[in-house]
Order: sequence, then structure tokens, then C-alpha cells
Amino acid sequence: MLGIMSYTPTACMILIGNELLSGRTQDKNLFWLAPKLNELGIHMAHARVIPDVTEIIVATINTCRMEYDYVFTTGGIGPTHDDITAAAIARAFGVPLKRHAEAERRLCAHYRPEDLNEARLKMADIPEGAALIDNPLSAAPGFVIENVFVLAGVPAIMQAMFEHFKTMLRGGRTTHSLTIETDLPEGAIAAGLTAIQQRFPKVDIGCYPVFLNGELSSTVVLRSQEGEMLNAAANEVETLLVHLT
Amino acid sequence: MLGIMSYTPTACMILIGNELLSGRTQDKNLFWLAPKLNELGIHMAHARVIPDVTEIIVATINTCRMEYDYVFTTGGIGPTHDDITAAAIARAFGVPLKRHAEAERRLCAHYRPEDLNEARLKMADIPEGAALIDNPLSAAPGFVIENVFVLAGVPAIMQAMFEHFKTMLRGGRTTHSLTIETDLPEGAIAAGLTAIQQRFPKVDIGCYPVFLNGELSSTVVLRSQEGEMLNAAANEVETLLVHLT
Repeated sequence: MLGIMSYTPTACMILIGNELLSGRTQDKNLFWLAPKLNELGIHMAHARVIPDVTEIIVATINTCRMEYDYVFTTGGIGPTHDDITAAAIARAFGVPLKRHAEAERRLCAHYRPEDLNEARLKMADIPEGAALIDNPLSAAPGFVIENVFVLAGVPAIMQAMFEHFKTMLRGGRTTHSLTIETDLPEGAIAAGLTAIQQRFPKVDIGCYPVFLNGELSSTVVLRSQEGEMLNAAANEVETLLVHLT
Repeated sequence: MLGIMSYTPTACMILIGNELLSGRTQDKNLFWLAPKLNELGIHMAHARVIPDVTEIIVATINTCRMEYDYVFTTGGIGPTHDDITAAAIARAFGVPLKRHAEAERRLCAHYRPEDLNEARLKMADIPEGAALIDNPLSAAPGFVIENVFVLAGVPAIMQAMFEHFKTMLRGGRTTHSLTIETDLPEGAIAAGLTAIQQRFPKVDIGCYPVFLNGELSSTVVLRSQEGEMLNAAANEVETLLVHLT
């Protein structure tokens, strides 16, 4: 009896780059994309951070594309020697990496002829069978092959690409959330929250400590696809907090 | 002929929490811990972000503790119903979760008797055989079992725990890095960098685009355990950039 829309597709993000594992760069793409996908009814279920190593990229792609409905990679699609993502994706799918005529046309339109060197043209090398994802900021496209979306690592470019690739996604039901702040520490509200969680199995209740100036307070986050249950559970949390304060 | 110190142990970070996958919370722990581990001669090789689901935590722990010398988890060791990390770790190792006398003593010393409820005492439940990791900020300890270090998710608490657990780590050689900024975009320096990378296989040269006000510039990061080679490669990059500017 389940219709297509009652299923929420899952997503996995693969953040590619030595700089994310050395602590040089703080990833901003997971934090940005997760709520955007939820608005489309796609659930971010998993993320991995991996280095610029071909064998690791290939193995990770081939594991994750089987386990999740959508896979999004960021990073490694630029012009330098350490940009190896496109070649690794081609190898993961067992297809050749080929210069893509339309991608080349876009690079030719973007660069002055004297600036369009072989390194930049490398950004038009795409796994055979992949479709391009527009890059309105710096021309070099991302691409999608089967359920794997290959995106830029620079947040501004990844976010600009989203406007195009979101049209290729099919979502299910979105998850709604309500956030309740309290000065009470987690330990004071834990028993009450447990009882509410047991009464509302379809609401996911999270409780997060906030540590500020040596004092612990809490944020309660309720998430559910069921709007009415979400509101009912949130009312019970509000009542609990009033009683305990 | 290799001595112990010529091997650099690897680390994997497992960031546990629905809030990291919903986009409610931006992880700060990977970015903080990675360079601290490098100072100790431990290489952060991988990271995963997973939800508060027992089966997923168990499977991820059991995969990663075999593949990496050290595993660090953050999140899920508080007093509320959604804090399931300690129980999941116990299950991953096939040992019982038990109230730990010293952990209980610390909680008793930290809380006023009327505040020490069962939810807070849950934070003294530790997998059998684990050793405690001090928490100087809020008393509830982390713990280590075999090569798995189980830490708080709140950055201030995780960072305070580091002062204790770093004494339990054995590192190898540290990786040194040099960073060179240039106004040139990646595409203009790619060919020259490739040639330098080929001459210095023991130096890991990364090139990262900086996208600011519609203009692309670049940051070149050189990393190596070999200080002399690192300096020589950096000199060649500087010379390249002078020639191209």
C-alpha cells in the first residue's frame, strides 16, 4: 500500500580532500547540503571524509553507491595534479574518462584563448555516460553518473551547482523539526524526555548540551515526518520544562 | 631496518550524532583534533559521520578499529535517552556495560546529592575493561577500550579531555607543512606544480582554489615528513610563482 511518496530516499556525502583530514580546511558542504536535501525530501544518512587517493575514492564510491539512493562527492575536480576525482569515478564505474565536447565548449567560452591551457581543459574530462552539472560561477562543470553527483569542493561553487542538480533529484516526504531551548541541563530533563520519546516512537527527540561559561544548558530538537505528532510531542516537552523549572 | 619511530600510526574519527547529519550542528572536532594528532606523529586518515543508531555505531566501530591504529569517537555519551554510544561500544566489543566505581565517585563529587539522579549516573556506565578519560569540565568521563577512544561531542569538553588522553597515544614522525598563497588561479600554475610534484614524490603538494568576489586565486600546501625535501620543493614553487607572475 506504500506509494512512491511515502519513501524517503537516502543520501551519503563523500568529502574528498587531504586538506579536510589535515585540519587545514573545515568542511562546510555537509552542513549546507543536509538541510537543502531535507527540504526536497531526501534524508542525509551518512558522510565520509577521505583523502585524495585513487584506490580509496574508488572503493568508497563503490561501497556507498550501492548502499544509498544518492551519493554526493565534493572536491578534486579542479585543474591541478591533485584533482583526481573524475578519473577515480570513471574507474569506479569501469568506463573511460573522455573529453566532453559540451564541457570543452563551456571552458572555451569562459577563458580567453591564451589562458585555456591543457590543465584547464582537463576539467572537461568526464566519465563516459555522465551528464554535466552546470557551474555558473567558474564554468568547469560537475557531473552525474547513475546515482553519484560529483560536485566542486569550494562551497560557493557547490552551492551554485545545487540550483541545477536539485532538478535531477526525486525526493519523498520531508522531515519537520522543532527546537526548544531550556536553561536546564540535560541530566535534569532526561527522565521526562525518555518517557515522552517512548510515547512518540515516530518522533525523533534529540537532546544536545550547550556548554557556555562553565554552565550546561540544553537544546531539545524534535524531528518527524508526522506534523501532528511532532506538535503533540513538542507540547509535552514544553509542559515538562515548565514543571521542572 | 625500520625503527618504531619511522612508522606513522593512522587514526580514524567517527562523529556520532543525528544533529551532524541534519545540518543542525557543524562538526568542529575533526578540524580541531587532526592537527593535534599530527603534532603527536599520528596521521588522521579517515572520518565518518553516522547517526545515533546502535547497529550502525557497532558496525562502524568494528570496521574502523581493524583498519586504523586509533579510532576516536565523539558524541552520544551524555545522560539522555539518545546517548547510546557507550552501550553500542560495549556491544561492538562483546563486553557488558557496567557501572564503573571510579566514574560514579567522580559524578558523586561533582553533583549535589539531590541532583545526582539515575540519568546522570548512567554516565558512569562504561564497557567492562575500559579505562577512564578525565573530563575536568563536567566530570562525566570518556573512556578508552583497546584502540577506541570515546569522547564527548561538545568541543570544549572534547578538547579538555585531549589533555589527558594524549598521554596514552604513541606517535611516529610528524608531518611538516608549508603554505604558499598566490593571486594566480590554479589553472595557471597547474603544469608547473605537476612537474615539481614529480620531482618530489615524498612531498605531498596540494593546490586549493580560493574563490573571493568572483576571482579565483590559489593556496599551495606542501606536506612532508622530510624537512629538507619540503624546503627544497617549496623553493621551487616560489620560483615558479615568481616566473609566472
